[in-house]
Amino acid sequence: MPRIAYVNGRYAQHAEAGVHVEDRGYQFADGVYEVCLVVNGVFWDEDGHLARLDRSLAALSIGKPMTKRALRLVMGALLRKNRLKNALVYLQVTRGVAPRNHPFPEKPPEPSLVMTAKRFDLAKAEKQARSGISVITAPDIRWGRVDIKSVSLLPNVLAKETARQAGAQEAWLVKDGKITEGASSNAWIVTSDGDIVTHPLCHEILGGITRQGVMECAAALQMKVIERPFTAEEASSAAEAFLTSATTLVTPIVRIDGKAVGDGKPGNVAKRLREAYIERCLTASPEESEKVLL
Amino acid sequence: MPRIAYVNGRYAQHAEAGVHVEDRGYQFADGVYEVCLVVNGVFWDEDGHLARLDRSLAALSIGKPMTKRALRLVMGALLRKNRLKNALVYLQVTRGVAPRNHPFPEKPPEPSLVMTAKRFDLAKAEKQARSGISVITAPDIRWGRVDIKSVSLLPNVLAKETARQAGAQEAWLVKDGKITEGASSNAWIVTSDGDIVTHPLCHEILGGITRQGVMECAAALQMKVIERPFTAEEASSAAEAFLTSATTLVTPIVRIDGKAVGDGKPGNVAKRLREAYIERCLTASPEESEKVLL
Repeated sequence: MPRIAYVNGRYAQHAEAGVHVEDRGYQFADGVYEVCLVVNGVFWDEDGHLARLDRSLAALSIGKPMTKRALRLVMGALLRKNRLKNALVYLQVTRGVAPRNHPFPEKPPEPSLVMTAKRFDLAKAEKQARSGISVITAPDIRWGRVDIKSVSLLPNVLAKETARQAGAQEAWLVKDGKITEGASSNAWIVTSDGDIVTHPLCHEILGGITRQGVMECAAALQMKVIERPFTAEEASSAAEAFLTSATTLVTPIVRIDGKAVGDGKPGNVAKRLREAYIERCLTASPEESEKVLL
Repeated sequence: MPRIAYVNGRYAQHAEAGVHVEDRGYQFADGVYEVCLVVNGVFWDEDGHLARLDRSLAALSIGKPMTKRALRLVMGALLRKNRLKNALVYLQVTRGVAPRNHPFPEKPPEPSLVMTAKRFDLAKAEKQARSGISVITAPDIRWGRVDIKSVSLLPNVLAKETARQAGAQEAWLVKDGKITEGASSNAWIVTSDGDIVTHPLCHEILGGITRQGVMECAAALQMKVIERPFTAEEASSAAEAFLTSATTLVTPIVRIDGKAVGDGKPGNVAKRLREAYIERCLTASPEESEKVLL
């Protein structure tokens, strides 16, 4: 089936979906994005993702391309046109098109909005998570406002490529001796005392929506989460390690820089949190009928 | 006259010049660029710009979209189609189009090449330079490899916007107390002893082609250039300050954070270097006939 993309007010064949060469997203990385998981027609953690999109836009003084309600309608239409009930929806908003010049255009252009969707197979993802993944550590050389979910992702790309070349699936980024987060996920460890540790929110990490959901699950399970930075050494001697993101949910890490974490198998805390997070999303949302996109 | 752009092998009406929504330049800032000044059909500092383009591409393991000779031919054709002999040519190369995923695509896509041209009026630029410009200082929050001329420019955009709102034309970026460079130019001061000072080349500045040309002019004029970092305090008490870039050449700075530099008028060193740089470009290149694009 041919794929359909949404671009600035129209639905286009994916192969022909284009933006202008002077779109500021292309020339200046002057835009933001969200990756949204839809399972059985339900947009998981919808409120969190749409609120973060607003925060990212506000941080860059980019106008909202449309209301939240309209965004949901477009997302629903896009999924129907692509005949997808289980999908990853990629949503990008940039400042729009203007003659190339660094400062914001004096007359703000219409923000550009692009949405694409691709199939997501939860069962397959489950299988991958069961074996756990490997991460490497790499210097965190990103800019000072990675709390804004911008498309200024070149350092993330380079870190991910370094991981790939090392046979790993993610790079944990190290700044001043501490692990801030992964190149496209938040980083967590479980200490030998059973404390769950992750970096606190600040300008140096992207506040993950899945991170927030997992914290709520941990609280419900009466597991203690401590928000503090941790070192690579702490991580390599931790009882467990895992990462969170909208696409990987909660995924156990079994190797860091080639060294086994704990007994080298996915940990129980990560497994419980993954199950709890999935359960929470599967059961909570459909009850609120307005949450169903399709 | 309608403008024409070059996009991936074809010449298109500017208004219709587009790239794919999954071009990695759009989704990841995974690309590089050059801004090239053409005066009377001559590409100023051509060798320097094309060599830097190669270095930027190599640093990101992006293939060359075409040979230097072919790039020159496209640039010449673009100028002819736009009936421009005096122009700024913007040239952007990205890793190309691939399904969204952070690491480099396993099978490298064809790099994307976009070129646009707009009129440049040297006489008008001269007039602007004669009055000097204002800069502000702002924190340098860019990533750790700004020596690569990538389109990962969001922090530069924000700094330029801060400058614009303050009524200034450029932001000088401060890292660890030292001025690294401007948001889109290199930063220079002249001390009360007459020493010309600019930040040394390293990962924290973009090695300007105009910067290099101006250093050669200074050497020819037997003016002493010292490559060392300098502070904002040093700058505000300097005898002169100026910036260099391909579009502004050498432009005197008369105010830093609202305070007059020296006597508040463009300095003589900056003026001499500007004249020398322009003279060098106007006289040197046309003698080598292969340098003429048109």
